[in-house]
Amino acid sequence: MTLEQVFKDIDASYEKYKSILAEAVAIESVSGDPTRRPQTIKMVNWVKERLEKLGVRCTLQDLGKHTVDGKELPLPPVLFGQLGDSKSKKTVLVYGHLDVQPAAKVDGWETEPFVLTERVISYPGCIIEITRDGKLFGRGSTDDKGPVLCWLHAIEMLQKHKIDIPVNIKFCFEAMEESGSLGLAELLEKNKNAFLAGVDFVCISDSYWLGTTKPCLTHGLRGLATFKIEVTGIQQDLHSGVYGGVVHEPLQDLIWIMAQLTSVENRILIPGIYDDVAPMSKEEHQLYEKIDFNVAEFRDSVGAKKLPTEDKKTLLIRRWREPCLSLHGIEGAFSGAGEKTVIPSKVIGKFSIRLVPNMKPEKVNKIVIDYLNELWKKRGSPNTFNPRLGHDALPWVADTNEANFKAGARAVKQVHGVEPDLIREGCSIPITLTFQDLTGKSVLLLPLGAADDMAHSQNEKFNKSNYVQGVKILLSYLLELGKA
Amino acid sequence: MTLEQVFKDIDASYEKYKSILAEAVAIESVSGDPTRRPQTIKMVNWVKERLEKLGVRCTLQDLGKHTVDGKELPLPPVLFGQLGDSKSKKTVLVYGHLDVQPAAKVDGWETEPFVLTERVISYPGCIIEITRDGKLFGRGSTDDKGPVLCWLHAIEMLQKHKIDIPVNIKFCFEAMEESGSLGLAELLEKNKNAFLAGVDFVCISDSYWLGTTKPCLTHGLRGLATFKIEVTGIQQDLHSGVYGGVVHEPLQDLIWIMAQLTSVENRILIPGIYDDVAPMSKEEHQLYEKIDFNVAEFRDSVGAKKLPTEDKKTLLIRRWREPCLSLHGIEGAFSGAGEKTVIPSKVIGKFSIRLVPNMKPEKVNKIVIDYLNELWKKRGSPNTFNPRLGHDALPWVADTNEANFKAGARAVKQVHGVEPDLIREGCSIPITLTFQDLTGKSVLLLPLGAADDMAHSQNEKFNKSNYVQGVKILLSYLLELGKA
Repeated sequence: MTLEQVFKDIDASYEKYKSILAEAVAIESVSGDPTRRPQTIKMVNWVKERLEKLGVRCTLQDLGKHTVDGKELPLPPVLFGQLGDSKSKKTVLVYGHLDVQPAAKVDGWETEPFVLTERVISYPGCIIEITRDGKLFGRGSTDDKGPVLCWLHAIEMLQKHKIDIPVNIKFCFEAMEESGSLGLAELLEKNKNAFLAGVDFVCISDSYWLGTTKPCLTHGLRGLATFKIEVTGIQQDLHSGVYGGVVHEPLQDLIWIMAQLTSVENRILIPGIYDDVAPMSKEEHQLYEKIDFNVAEFRDSVGAKKLPTEDKKTLLIRRWREPCLSLHGIEGAFSGAGEKTVIPSKVIGKFSIRLVPNMKPEKVNKIVIDYLNELWKKRGSPNTFNPRLGHDALPWVADTNEANFKAGARAVKQVHGVEPDLIREGCSIPITLTFQDLTGKSVLLLPLGAADDMAHSQNEKFNKSNYVQGVKILLSYLLELGKA
Repeated sequence: MTLEQVFKDIDASYEKYKSILAEAVAIESVSGDPTRRPQTIKMVNWVKERLEKLGVRCTLQDLGKHTVDGKELPLPPVLFGQLGDSKSKKTVLVYGHLDVQPAAKVDGWETEPFVLTERVISYPGCIIEITRDGKLFGRGSTDDKGPVLCWLHAIEMLQKHKIDIPVNIKFCFEAMEESGSLGLAELLEKNKNAFLAGVDFVCISDSYWLGTTKPCLTHGLRGLATFKIEVTGIQQDLHSGVYGGVVHEPLQDLIWIMAQLTSVENRILIPGIYDDVAPMSKEEHQLYEKIDFNVAEFRDSVGAKKLPTEDKKTLLIRRWREPCLSLHGIEGAFSGAGEKTVIPSKVIGKFSIRLVPNMKPEKVNKIVIDYLNELWKKRGSPNTFNPRLGHDALPWVADTNEANFKAGARAVKQVHGVEPDLIREGCSIPITLTFQDLTGKSVLLLPLGAADDMAHSQNEKFNKSNYVQGVKILLSYLLELGKA
């Protein structure tokens, strides 16, 4: 039995794979909707049964309850599974999530979000329709039910063709990822020397390619520090006719401060903020030059007329390995439609900074708060100023020379015939760092979906080709890990 | 029968007056609440019956319907009334409103808002409790049911003591004032040569003293011009992790613009904005010097540590006869509690400018929009900028040498023994200008309530003494108008 023959069998199994994904999508496991908590729990059990059919020993890890709108709700359990426990084999830990974001047809879906629907259409926002193959529309198709099922299909196919799986596999599937992964980090910490013991590699399929055609491996994520600036000074909201002109308005102070955080080109004006950004090696420079990324297509996909930089390399560097500062909004000011001639009494400006290696949250916090206090002194307002940190998350970057990444790269090459681009993401996936810290081993983010899959948005989809190739990639990855 | 004896009878009638006000307050005529529209209409009929008992010929002016949340609702009718039509007498038009703002105990009321409750307490925010007399708590007690009832009590008292009322009186009582006086201006325009014909004076009791102890007459109101600044540039809200640093954020542009509208001392930075402010005569300067106003008490009542100016005269001038600019908020940005790491795609900044004589809205609009466009050019952002006018209202200022004001001043002096302060208000009451324009006659704002009455807020009240003295002032005013 050659790998080529197995791949042909995978191609031939597409209709079956589609019907299984349709079953999964039909379970409305929206973790953020308390009324659909039973479906979220049902989804965990549905996957448990399927894993058990493959011989995976499963346990459900109870996380207790949480309170939503004053009502106690059971948290969906975390599904731990284990396939194989050979002492002579290495062990890979696979993470995925079974819950989804909310979705409703009225939000602008062209199909029923919980009915998996295959269509062959071109896509708004994607300028050039390169693949003409089918797209499987449905909530969870790409985030993250499709990729999770790719693991199950790959194992089933190896078993069907009696191919030895050269690694032990552990599964950690949760169903609260879209709601902050409540309780997961604590559960994993408790299992550092139990379920997580003996893990050699970690693999997460919950991110996306950089574009729509070229496969990628992800080796970096930015961290985050969020900030709140509160300005008060009058005891209640005032009528702007009666009091306008004779009080120091807190909102005027706040906006003056917020205006001095970034330049028009969206560079951060806080002194020292770029000082600790890791210098780029020659090797890394070359990496960015090789990456397949179309700036014009990216610009058009966000609907911008012009970007602060349109140089490919500079843009990717700013997006992945430089800090940035975004203003999010103001709490306490008038935010409705129409007009309200009010002087708000207490306003809180919100902004956040994305962190990259080697920035330290403590130092970032200090230089940001120092800068804000210095601005405030310059302002000279008698109002009360209270800048503070919200929360922070560390950036993550992996060594792409690790065996885990090499196995991933070889698997991708076997399926797609090209070396994957080594990319980063600008956002944070905190669980990545948790796995790395607790196991001390390499974590690989192995994206199966395309950049235009619209995770979290209307018309989420998973390409037919990405689904089928995804099964092949994960199957190959398991075999390649055996050589590591 | 001397005036002194009549005044004693008014003092003696307090318990009766209180019970009538309690009846009025109990009718929950909240015009902004569609479910209480029947009570709002009931309130109009309740006053109509009372006026008719006094011999006033009344008609209800139907205003048709309006649509609230997709549902058609009847507008409460406007009550027109006429008492006397002697050709040898002059005619005064009295305006008041019968509807109230919403109120609920849970909002922070210490008593049931629709149960009139007399208490003798000191008041938070009012540093010095000067009068120790009773306070009548209840929604509408001071705004505007109490003052409306003062008219009815004054007329009843004159009739009881068989004192000829030396003027004809016309009444215009509406019940949509707290909801934008829907339909009233159109009704009055249609009645320019009908109901409004022959009016010599207009009197409105729907404002407040400058402080808590000294009576006032109000002769000026500021106008208003509201503005919206819209910035767009990306086609949908973006994840600040994925896109942060590589797009021009509309909110950064908007806040940069909004930061350049005022100084820390809340002076307007728009060139030319103060150019058309009417110069102050020597007489007006003297007027401001005489006014009884305690800056420290005012500062403490708003809860500020320090005010942009603490000079009495400068503060009052800035509040009443200079323009001011207030920032109200931003539509489209994140405004909730907590955190949301979003880059908003379309944001609309809201601000307004109060206008004073001799500013012209058209010119203000032009110099504001020109300034905004100039700032935008300086900003150099590729995003899309759209500044626009919301709506505007003209300022109003009256000649205090008119007979109407002289009669009001004499009435106040008879009751309080002091000349009233001649004050202005910083806000707009558009109906004032409508009456002045349509009748071509003097409009007097004759406040009966005190500055700490908390109209529109929790714990609205009308002092026992203001209620009783109010009846006396209006009675005297009617008699004094006869001499005009």
